[in-house]
Amino acid sequence: MDQSFPDWRNYCQITALGEHDITLRMPFRPTLLRAGGTISGPAMMGLADTAAYFCTLAQAGPVASAATANLDIHFLSRPKPVDVTAIATMLRLGRRLSVCTVDLWSDGERVAHATVTYALPPR
Amino acid sequence: MDQSFPDWRNYCQITALGEHDITLRMPFRPTLLRAGGTISGPAMMGLADTAAYFCTLAQAGPVASAATANLDIHFLSRPKPVDVTAIATMLRLGRRLSVCTVDLWSDGERVAHATVTYALPPR
Amino acid sequence: MDQSFPDWRNYCQITALGEHDITLRMPFRPTLLRAGGTISGPAMMGLADTAAYFCTLAQAGPVASAATANLDIHFLSRPKPVDVTAIATMLRLGRRLSVCTVDLWSDGERVAHATVTYALPPR
Amino acid sequence: MDQSFPDWRNYCQITALGEHDITLRMPFRPTLLRAGGTISGPAMMGLADTAAYFCTLAQAGPVASAATANLDIHFLSRPKPVDVTAIATMLRLGRRLSVCTVDLWSDGERVAHATVTYALPPR
Repeated sequence: MDQSFPDWRNYCQITALGEHDITLRMPFRPTLLRAGGTISGPAMMGLADTAAYFCTLAQAGPVASAATANLDIHFLSRPKPVDVTAIATMLRLGRRLSVCTVDLWSDGERVAHATVTYALPPR
Repeated sequence: MDQSFPDWRNYCQITALGEHDITLRMPFRPTLLRAGGTISGPAMMGLADTAAYFCTLAQAGPVASAATANLDIHFLSRPKPVDVTAIATMLRLGRRLSVCTVDLWSDGERVAHATVTYALPPR
Repeated sequence: MDQSFPDWRNYCQITALGEHDITLRMPFRPTLLRAGGTISGPAMMGLADTAAYFCTLAQAGPVASAATANLDIHFLSRPKPVDVTAIATMLRLGRRLSVCTVDLWSDGERVAHATVTYALPPR
Repeated sequence: MDQSFPDWRNYCQITALGEHDITLRMPFRPTLLRAGGTISGPAMMGLADTAAYFCTLAQAGPVASAATANLDIHFLSRPKPVDVTAIATMLRLGRRLSVCTVDLWSDGERVAHATVTYALPPR
């Protein structure tokens, strides 16, 4: 990540790494808000996408050119203006595709659930 | 939009409004890029979400508090570093939900297809 | 269920009921197969839909007229010609929508992951 | 299709074939109904899946072993107990994946919209 996306630590931190999962935290900053005082949808979609990307790299190795093929996200409740935690879990790592779920948590509540497919480069 | 999101014109423009659809253009700017020189996934997801929001407001009236319930996006090819056009089409406007498709085009090519559901406030 | 869908026990059985989840088993029968000797996609989609429906009724009460609004399913590996188990978990039960995830398991392996939204009748 | 799925004509008919799309008709039969007199969700999901499969084969050639990777369907209104027409349109045919949209129509009304991804065998 440091090679391909040198700025990523400004945006989120890895707080745990399991055998099939990874946990990220996106610290709150006011630019993440939308009208109504809630974290914006694009900020949450970006975090879900990033968490699935990190989970894919953690399992598949340094495939920096992996690209999102599909992201499906369900917003469950409006996140408060605080840090958001993302837990990405690998459901299947194939030769050509990875499929992860990502749950986003805020203030002890699950605020969104995503399923994210990455297309992997030939390895 | 000018009341609820005063800055929106910095981000995109409405270029056409039909009976069931709306067309937006997101002008290129370098901050939309990700590594590899392609428009970032979150930028495209944000544009798809915004286009569905505008389409919903154009059909349902000024329901600024409408909130995304679900967004499903398929990335079809990597967009070039140019303007992206979004065409949102209303599939169904119910009392409680709107469902739109959004196609994103770049340089004459469809680069993504999304289906977006908005939850509507009581009217 | 016995009132609204008297035949349901021919199709699947409830094997566990938790606070936020429900487990169903769909016994294998040859009519579930497609060419290639795997359980057909529509059979798995039907099971995921049913599991989310049962989970919704278990949490929301007897809302037999609840209707699927959205189903998103990712097929992870081809299920063998054996029983399939579905575990549906309620992510959010709102006034108007329920959102569940459903994991389908076959022979110790997760074969599909679905997210299912039901629209609830006024209560 | 006649080689791999000899029974398919009992289930649906191809009524049109375009450069990027295919149209199927699923004739009404009482076994497609669910309680409430509407076509069942699994019947509609099966039709959407089949239409995307046929569209993929029409474009990619005889890849009978193509398998559904993802199906996302939004139900828009309850179909009447009549024939259902499916129009599948290829959005992208890559080496490894095809992505189609499928619109289901019943009695002049769009009743569902699906996006379906097929994983293609090596060619």
